[in-house]
Amino acid sequence: MPLDSQNMLQVIKDFPKQCREALGLPAGISVSGEIKNIVVTGMGGSAIGGDLLKTCLSNTNIPVYVNRDYKVPEFVNENTLVFAVSYSGDTEETLAAFEDAQNKNAKIIGITSGGKLADECSKIIKIPSGLQPRAALGYLFFPMLGILHNTGIVRVKNDELNEMVDILKKTGEFNDAGEELAKKLKEKIPIIYASEMLGAVALRWKTQINENAKMAAFYNVFSEMNHNEIVGYKGMDRKFIAIMVRDRHDNDRVKKRMDICKEIMEVTTDVEEVQTQGNGLLARIFSTIYLGDFVSYYLALWNRVDPTPIEVIEEMKRKLAE
Amino acid sequence: MPLDSQNMLQVIKDFPKQCREALGLPAGISVSGEIKNIVVTGMGGSAIGGDLLKTCLSNTNIPVYVNRDYKVPEFVNENTLVFAVSYSGDTEETLAAFEDAQNKNAKIIGITSGGKLADECSKIIKIPSGLQPRAALGYLFFPMLGILHNTGIVRVKNDELNEMVDILKKTGEFNDAGEELAKKLKEKIPIIYASEMLGAVALRWKTQINENAKMAAFYNVFSEMNHNEIVGYKGMDRKFIAIMVRDRHDNDRVKKRMDICKEIMEVTTDVEEVQTQGNGLLARIFSTIYLGDFVSYYLALWNRVDPTPIEVIEEMKRKLAE
Repeated sequence: MPLDSQNMLQVIKDFPKQCREALGLPAGISVSGEIKNIVVTGMGGSAIGGDLLKTCLSNTNIPVYVNRDYKVPEFVNENTLVFAVSYSGDTEETLAAFEDAQNKNAKIIGITSGGKLADECSKIIKIPSGLQPRAALGYLFFPMLGILHNTGIVRVKNDELNEMVDILKKTGEFNDAGEELAKKLKEKIPIIYASEMLGAVALRWKTQINENAKMAAFYNVFSEMNHNEIVGYKGMDRKFIAIMVRDRHDNDRVKKRMDICKEIMEVTTDVEEVQTQGNGLLARIFSTIYLGDFVSYYLALWNRVDPTPIEVIEEMKRKLAE
Repeated sequence: MPLDSQNMLQVIKDFPKQCREALGLPAGISVSGEIKNIVVTGMGGSAIGGDLLKTCLSNTNIPVYVNRDYKVPEFVNENTLVFAVSYSGDTEETLAAFEDAQNKNAKIIGITSGGKLADECSKIIKIPSGLQPRAALGYLFFPMLGILHNTGIVRVKNDELNEMVDILKKTGEFNDAGEELAKKLKEKIPIIYASEMLGAVALRWKTQINENAKMAAFYNVFSEMNHNEIVGYKGMDRKFIAIMVRDRHDNDRVKKRMDICKEIMEVTTDVEEVQTQGNGLLARIFSTIYLGDFVSYYLALWNRVDPTPIEVIEEMKRKLAE
């Protein structure tokens, strides 16, 4: 195995532990006053945590807006709960959006391991430092969910959490399945698909493949891709590989669309299917994310790159500071 | 030139005329009662109209939610204005979401050329039929903007409209620039980038290339792509080509990020830049969309495919009906 890639493997393997720990962080913390909408502002993995939160709140009547920008939306006001999420606490976009949210008198909770955000935000959930931000998704996501549970905005059942934790315990199985699937993705351009509901899971796979394996990857959702992207398959070839996240709770029409698309895609490209595990939403989301993390790790090994450092992003930060 | 591709070329050339016509459609139509948020429900080009509306309303305090699904969000109620947008009026997802919005007592306006939506929605803007839905973006978008102008939610200045119309008049220049750029995209995998603000423009390019040229294309936004996708360029090669939409109104940090990324990308792939035209938001958006339409048309010719029919989508509809 090349370089210090063992480190990332251990961090991935420890993800279930991270989730259990993260669940305890918001104990006793809630938000008072009327909340009319929620904005999660962050970039990369922090924003994906926001997308997942939106999915988890999709059966409540509180709109969740995920903001990947230097400003928060104009509608933000004193009845908006803003989660400012930055692992380092120094993400430039998130700090600017945090300041904008302050000027708009939002209720703000920071989720960070330190940095300026920890200094400047009066209410924060402090998460452990020392990880790559993308490896801290559990810490970045579960505190938000816990606070909204404590506030009465969403009800997270213990059964649902226990189911997720029990499934994630099967680390060896995820590891092996991830290694197996990675072989099929080697030297290909993966495009990951899921339902609109699980779009953030597909996005997570894409970004993990980008960052860990240092290769191109894309994603899209059903049924939107039926209206345009599917036409592109006519001009594609077997350097692409489509990965479809299948979920037993998908809308029946979406299931049928996925079946039909698979046939269409297979004429020109390869297609693999991945099944979510469990019944509850959290189990289905995080089991699939966990598998994707292993896939991206083993793809890095196939590509003979170290999954941990992301030199390009470090280079960009240096140049941005010039 | 192959097949009946002339038809699509003429429709693209007529886009400025379509925009002028579409601006007149909502004359005298407004919405009464309190509007707390707006949902645009539609798929493909109809949903992109929603994304553009969101951009145009970004300096108002009315949240706009673009919905590409069979249901509308749970928060939809009698204070939500829902635009149900479907060119044919028979888009299955949009009809289902329309029904869901009715059950939630939303104020609904349909934008369609006919179909079930025209039959079932009591308040519609009827747009001309006979086009490919993706070629009707002007008809799908401007009626929404006009109604919101009439309702006092957004103020569209005549100067801004005139600037857009004047720029779009230069059809020959757009045609030639589109043909030129298409040459560079031939046999490549284009990835189109824009700022978060103009993300819908990049998405429109991507979908037009998918549908007209029948080839793979992807998109992403700045600065989100800096946090993951850029790392993938390390493993990419010159079968990819990045196209960056540059806008003089981009945030200065985004401009710097684009400059830095261009350098990083050019190590492994080709990069082309496209400049928005004009000062007003509408001119900048639609000048760039107009160019992209020509690019996708000429790419179809290079690929020796007919830009007009989208057999795959027709095939899918047939199989879905089985």
